[in-house]
Amino acid sequence: MLRAGVDLGGTKIQVAIVDADGNVIGQCRIPTPQDHGSAGVIDAMVQSVRDAMTDAKADMGTLLGVGVGAPGQIDHDAGTVSHAGNLPDWLGTVAVAGPMRTALGVPIELANDVQVGVMAESKLGAGRPYTSMLGVFCGTGVGGGIVVNDELWLGRGAAGEVGHMVVEPDGAPCPCGRRGCLEAYAGRAAMEAEARRRADKGKKTKLFEIMEKKGRTRLSSGVWAKALEKDDHMAVDLIDRAIWALGLACASAINLLDVEAVVIGGGLGCRLGTPFAERIRDEMKPHLILPEKEPQVLSAALGDLGGAMGAALRVEHTIPPVGDLGTVTDRDA
Amino acid sequence: MLRAGVDLGGTKIQVAIVDADGNVIGQCRIPTPQDHGSAGVIDAMVQSVRDAMTDAKADMGTLLGVGVGAPGQIDHDAGTVSHAGNLPDWLGTVAVAGPMRTALGVPIELANDVQVGVMAESKLGAGRPYTSMLGVFCGTGVGGGIVVNDELWLGRGAAGEVGHMVVEPDGAPCPCGRRGCLEAYAGRAAMEAEARRRADKGKKTKLFEIMEKKGRTRLSSGVWAKALEKDDHMAVDLIDRAIWALGLACASAINLLDVEAVVIGGGLGCRLGTPFAERIRDEMKPHLILPEKEPQVLSAALGDLGGAMGAALRVEHTIPPVGDLGTVTDRDA
Repeated sequence: MLRAGVDLGGTKIQVAIVDADGNVIGQCRIPTPQDHGSAGVIDAMVQSVRDAMTDAKADMGTLLGVGVGAPGQIDHDAGTVSHAGNLPDWLGTVAVAGPMRTALGVPIELANDVQVGVMAESKLGAGRPYTSMLGVFCGTGVGGGIVVNDELWLGRGAAGEVGHMVVEPDGAPCPCGRRGCLEAYAGRAAMEAEARRRADKGKKTKLFEIMEKKGRTRLSSGVWAKALEKDDHMAVDLIDRAIWALGLACASAINLLDVEAVVIGGGLGCRLGTPFAERIRDEMKPHLILPEKEPQVLSAALGDLGGAMGAALRVEHTIPPVGDLGTVTDRDA
Repeated sequence: MLRAGVDLGGTKIQVAIVDADGNVIGQCRIPTPQDHGSAGVIDAMVQSVRDAMTDAKADMGTLLGVGVGAPGQIDHDAGTVSHAGNLPDWLGTVAVAGPMRTALGVPIELANDVQVGVMAESKLGAGRPYTSMLGVFCGTGVGGGIVVNDELWLGRGAAGEVGHMVVEPDGAPCPCGRRGCLEAYAGRAAMEAEARRRADKGKKTKLFEIMEKKGRTRLSSGVWAKALEKDDHMAVDLIDRAIWALGLACASAINLLDVEAVVIGGGLGCRLGTPFAERIRDEMKPHLILPEKEPQVLSAALGDLGGAMGAALRVEHTIPPVGDLGTVTDRDA
């Protein structure tokens, strides 16, 4: 039997079809429709699941269920997604699970996008050798998740906001409206705002030139990577600053949690890869209370597919697996 | 059947005898012997357990086991305590469980002093209504512990070092040798060092006058409380600074963990009580990512006895309870 996972983002919908061994056997990736509101987005998710099943050369009858990782506030039991500001015309609280279930005829599991991404890294990715880890996902913002005893720790529902640990009192402005949060230094939106402030003051940079050449309107992870390649002074400085903040926040988190590993993911984290993770590890070390027991600091292993794979893993939570779900079942046993 | 808990500190040994309902029915508190090395300390613990059983009017035959909360590095399985710098002449690794078991004829459970204190607050104290909490214990240093799903989260053995979360990059010097840790602002040793620095620079304070009047050589929690009562400017300023740092660190921890409650304990925390906890709560709020879901911030309820009660709770971990251990068994059920 197969599970589908949908990673719903503001710019793209990524679907993965996962078999009983945890392998991805089919995929579909489309831009998130911008013109037909939430109904258009839901229709596109349904069609993408069908297209991914076709890609997997699988009959729809073999689909056990669909997991959806979405931004915003998730009400799992009601099957709704609210306050998803990144999604086009997503007004108020939108029923997602109901319409998708009607269209696809299988159970739909909603979950938070970052949380499923962290779980995917824990069960199938870089965190697989460990029973405890901290996931730090640097994308537009900085999200995260804590895995203890092989389970995601949700707290009262909002645990894992590593991006809003304070790294500098009264520090840089954060998109959340506060100051000095990790995200204010290591989230792409805040980094771009700072780059624009510096450029407005006459500081030189190739960042915006590269952005235009790539046909982008935002400093994407690819733009940052390219500017680093070209040794652009401002890009180097802002990435150094992000690494400094990530090192401080991750060290504080490790002193508090003492988990085995830190997995650095998200668009920017995956793009900059292992060298980025290693620099964060070096930056953490002076702040660790037990530097001789430093945790593993690893780059996320599943890349862009992690969100969709993690969403697929959610399906097992309500449906007893018919076959084995590969390593997942093994590790839970 | 009865359980004994021993809270072993550098200045005092506190024993509590706990009955099947979790009530303390006998006690003994003596100064930690300073002149006979670790053997003298172990003998004193053994005698204190006997004296506390006498205080409880209980026969030694009704003693199920003894839990010992100790500073330093605990090897639970080996029954040893190492690197306990606060204990008099405690050189290298000292066998504690073996000699105590021989003398008392019951199993001995060793554990970290702060961890048992946090567990006591979780099971029997201020954290009792909650299944998740963060304990922050301000004494000479700042220790802590995390409770998730009603269990202490130990990580790789060293979780809960909230005192070494960084609140200010390159900030105040910390007794750990680093800079800017929470403990550098909210631990009594660091606060005293800062007070002495300020006094050496000619700043006025009644802190040291109060200390001498109390016949102390250190700024104890009682000295701080008295100076606050007298509105001593330096004491007020240093406590404000401690609250500022506690607010920042606890907010970062809550953004990460999203636990239900923060319990403020330790010598200084207990002495300053609920008003101190409430000021920390107010200081946290502006840094919470979900201020509308602020956690409960409470003063520890068990005071000086918490460590010994928590140590007694450890006994259940290896010995099947004969009777009920009151609320503990109820909550674990």
